[in-house]
Amino acid sequence: MAKRNTKELILTTSLELFNQFGEPHVTTNHIADEADISPGNLYYHFRSKDDIVIELFKRFLTRFQPLVEISDQMLLQAEDLWFQLHLSFELKGEFRFLYRNLSDLTARIPDLDRAMRGLLKRERQSAWNSLSGLEKAGVINIDSRQKEMLADSILLALTYWIPFSELFDPNGMEDSSAQTRAIARVLLSVTPHLQDPEKTQFTDLAYQYLSHPA
Amino acid sequence: MAKRNTKELILTTSLELFNQFGEPHVTTNHIADEADISPGNLYYHFRSKDDIVIELFKRFLTRFQPLVEISDQMLLQAEDLWFQLHLSFELKGEFRFLYRNLSDLTARIPDLDRAMRGLLKRERQSAWNSLSGLEKAGVINIDSRQKEMLADSILLALTYWIPFSELFDPNGMEDSSAQTRAIARVLLSVTPHLQDPEKTQFTDLAYQYLSHPA
Repeated sequence: MAKRNTKELILTTSLELFNQFGEPHVTTNHIADEADISPGNLYYHFRSKDDIVIELFKRFLTRFQPLVEISDQMLLQAEDLWFQLHLSFELKGEFRFLYRNLSDLTARIPDLDRAMRGLLKRERQSAWNSLSGLEKAGVINIDSRQKEMLADSILLALTYWIPFSELFDPNGMEDSSAQTRAIARVLLSVTPHLQDPEKTQFTDLAYQYLSHPA
Repeated sequence: MAKRNTKELILTTSLELFNQFGEPHVTTNHIADEADISPGNLYYHFRSKDDIVIELFKRFLTRFQPLVEISDQMLLQAEDLWFQLHLSFELKGEFRFLYRNLSDLTARIPDLDRAMRGLLKRERQSAWNSLSGLEKAGVINIDSRQKEMLADSILLALTYWIPFSELFDPNGMEDSSAQTRAIARVLLSVTPHLQDPEKTQFTDLAYQYLSHPA
């Protein structure tokens, strides 16, 4: 197999195992076994499991970055916020091992700690900018302190919905019900501040998530 | 020193050290040193650090239990919810090491895992009952799906405000600003559903938290 393909295989296999069993319970031998390559071949590509975690985080970041590039000058429609939230929750679900043991991972890997703190700051700014964009478009009615707290609440939900869901249902992440509940929860935290017709649209949308898991 | 006093001294010292440095970074030797007792004396009272963690959790639980005993038949005033929230955040702040590395601790200590999952279920029920009590008193206007999602949002905030605050400010828990922000955030997630005069009261209360840290 070509080198590039082996590297990709290691990453795909690691992501699956980390998500399924939790990163702390997966060893590099386990990954090599599952990918059907020798441990030596794995070490040729990655010196340690931490290196695999960092590479997976970079992949996650590359795909997540466009979702936090919300300028504070944009006019936003409620649908834009919904779409941004949906994609964010979906992508985090795909890389859920990162968020399941966040404090663990960042305590162990300083590079990840720095990168994650940087990402969270951009996410917070982006949540604030999204709400400001809705305000500029006349869709939302909110004062600046409420906006700050709502942006924080959205970020809290985006950061901890994965371990939160697993506290109540350890297998809840295996189907998409945890994800749809999490999205509905955030949508319904925004709806009380929206003007109609967006208020009704968002509420209906949240109820659709609750009744028809994506 | 009497045995009972030594046991209490170990618990008090452990709580301080766990909160300050994080439980994973504190050893029993560190605790014995700080309490100015011999390691042997510590082991006479607690066989392991996990036993200290479990005993501290029991202390936390004894004090927290009354805060989650909200019957679904009560008529509740908005002030009751505020008082319940304030005490919950305060108590969790006092035992913050438990919530800082929740998934860590529960993965390591099965007894703690069971107890914590049980507590979370009671907390969820209690949040739901509180909102129902406000509904019965005619203070809140909310449908059952919104109520379920709002109860979950409150619980998410109650469970993760500590690591969330520390992601942005590693020393944020040393003064009370993280706590007051967290309380204000939850109050402001409830206010849009309240009727006046409670809506205005709650909003003013949240703003007081934001401007005058407790």
